[in-house]
Amino acid sequence: MPSSPMPVSTLESDAIRAVSPALARYADQTVRDDLWKRPQLSTRDRSIVTVAILIARNQPDDLPAYLDIALDHGVTPAEISEIITHLAFYAGWSNAMGAIRATREVFARRGVDPAHLPPASPPLNPINEESEAQRVAAVAKTVGPVAPGLESFTTMPLFRDLWLRPGLSPRDRSLVTVSALVANGQSAQIPYHLNKAMDNGLTAEQAGEVLTQAAFYAGWPNAFSAVPVVAAVLGKRAK
Amino acid sequence: MPSSPMPVSTLESDAIRAVSPALARYADQTVRDDLWKRPQLSTRDRSIVTVAILIARNQPDDLPAYLDIALDHGVTPAEISEIITHLAFYAGWSNAMGAIRATREVFARRGVDPAHLPPASPPLNPINEESEAQRVAAVAKTVGPVAPGLESFTTMPLFRDLWLRPGLSPRDRSLVTVSALVANGQSAQIPYHLNKAMDNGLTAEQAGEVLTQAAFYAGWPNAFSAVPVVAAVLGKRAK
Amino acid sequence: MPSSPMPVSTLESDAIRAVSPALARYADQTVRDDLWKRPQLSTRDRSIVTVAILIARNQPDDLPAYLDIALDHGVTPAEISEIITHLAFYAGWSNAMGAIRATREVFARRGVDPAHLPPASPPLNPINEESEAQRVAAVAKTVGPVAPGLESFTTMPLFRDLWLRPGLSPRDRSLVTVSALVANGQSAQIPYHLNKAMDNGLTAEQAGEVLTQAAFYAGWPNAFSAVPVVAAVLGKRAK
Repeated sequence: MPSSPMPVSTLESDAIRAVSPALARYADQTVRDDLWKRPQLSTRDRSIVTVAILIARNQPDDLPAYLDIALDHGVTPAEISEIITHLAFYAGWSNAMGAIRATREVFARRGVDPAHLPPASPPLNPINEESEAQRVAAVAKTVGPVAPGLESFTTMPLFRDLWLRPGLSPRDRSLVTVSALVANGQSAQIPYHLNKAMDNGLTAEQAGEVLTQAAFYAGWPNAFSAVPVVAAVLGKRAK
Repeated sequence: MPSSPMPVSTLESDAIRAVSPALARYADQTVRDDLWKRPQLSTRDRSIVTVAILIARNQPDDLPAYLDIALDHGVTPAEISEIITHLAFYAGWSNAMGAIRATREVFARRGVDPAHLPPASPPLNPINEESEAQRVAAVAKTVGPVAPGLESFTTMPLFRDLWLRPGLSPRDRSLVTVSALVANGQSAQIPYHLNKAMDNGLTAEQAGEVLTQAAFYAGWPNAFSAVPVVAAVLGKRAK
Repeated sequence: MPSSPMPVSTLESDAIRAVSPALARYADQTVRDDLWKRPQLSTRDRSIVTVAILIARNQPDDLPAYLDIALDHGVTPAEISEIITHLAFYAGWSNAMGAIRATREVFARRGVDPAHLPPASPPLNPINEESEAQRVAAVAKTVGPVAPGLESFTTMPLFRDLWLRPGLSPRDRSLVTVSALVANGQSAQIPYHLNKAMDNGLTAEQAGEVLTQAAFYAGWPNAFSAVPVVAAVLGKRAK
């Protein structure tokens, strides 16, 4: 893992300074030297959270800078591929297409071998039939009467294919999902996915640090709006 | 109407595959061959919903691909022109400007005759004075005391000009509006416009299928957040 | 201050007309000649609101047109610099980067002297220790137990550095913040910041007119969703 200074944008520091010397200072001191070095979340996890936020908010311009950080700190091209595929469903199809445009160039520049990407239809992880049965029953009750197509696609391909793909660990898949929800202020969907993330190994400290990272990359208001929702989940689980 | 395979992005399949073979498979099998062929909503309606979602979410990069689907399946250039004009008010002025940039090139490529676009000030459809009086009273009570300018512009040009333009049917205008609201998670505004849409001819089955289409193009969380709101509207109307 | 016609997009009128003659009419009659000339908010304030909305919604394409309006009507390059820096925190880091890209070209075209930009670390305005103590206590109670990192960064650099920078008046800083919150439908965060804005000099009439301006640039649904929140704040303050 290189120890080179991490750029926090595809923009050069001089370009930032030409409009805002203050923002160039915050970029170096607050974002690069403080936020990214906090031990509550690894650089690898921070890069996953940040890549997910940028894709979820459809901001591909800076994506190459953060894909480089991710690939330099242990995220594999295969995992990047799965993150984008996952967010096609959780952030919107065209968000994924924008991410593909940016990532294709990064992969080409770094000489990523297409043979190392996850196959279209790999053998899947086993499903937890008990929790899946609960999910199916809940969606059948709420979504089924209104949008049977949505109910059907939520089962296949979402929960019986996408979520079972082995190229990204369930914990990281949940981390990506929660990051995307916080990034877009979609509080109503956070409890289900945060519980799933914590069932899959995300700690309460890491969950709080995801909000901290999101404050910078999705703005303070989205992070603050997520706080009471996350607090409620943590409170219930502590009982 | 051509039966040629519909591309689901301005990106080529090979470009998608270079980053995610899985996403290229979902593009072909799930989106193109399954979602778009479901009979609950016509290809024409799906293309209107998708174009509205992309404009509402300010994602013009893929817009040309979906404008082509729309124009190949019965949506006229005049209707496209009205959809963009409508969304200038319901999605934001700059979203419409982005859509103009993309659409101008599609119209030029397809040789759309400017004489076929709706005039700036056509004779308007008659207004339903009874429902308009109710709307005026409601807005005067809620918006008037806070933002008299907003109250005024909501009457003119919004409800006494834009909504009465004959270039897009009231049902399609409502379909565009509901799609934009779902696309941006603006649940509070869905009941009024979904009721208006159903008064104008949108069926409950079609409303549910709009959510299904929106799940793919605006992401699962936005579709799921809209479900209880749509369910409440359908429940009240069923009584 | 020039009296030249204000363009409402970087697009030429002819380009708009080539897709929608109606939208070109609305651009001239409704937006330029009506909205922007309403006396409830100065052209300077409208340009600040609109620039903030475009940055908050990550729509840099039209930003140059509105930066020109701002700079032609009394907003200084130093204030533009501070607005972008402020929104890096309130709208997201990458939104600010996009704004930097657009603004750098405008500054270069207009020959803005970098020596006139606010320094990275100027002497700060004094803090109101009483209201700051209240804020610290509230955040310690709600955010602290969930995300201690977020609590810490909210104090420094947010409230003990960014908000005290003298390059943008507290009233204008609040105007930018409220505009960004309305622009992204972040209603939960509006009461705190609208109260702060009004404490800093924003009038009730101006607050309502911010919603009117936001209706056009962030879409009617975001403006309407903010109305009851703003009404509640105004109602409490009137007591």
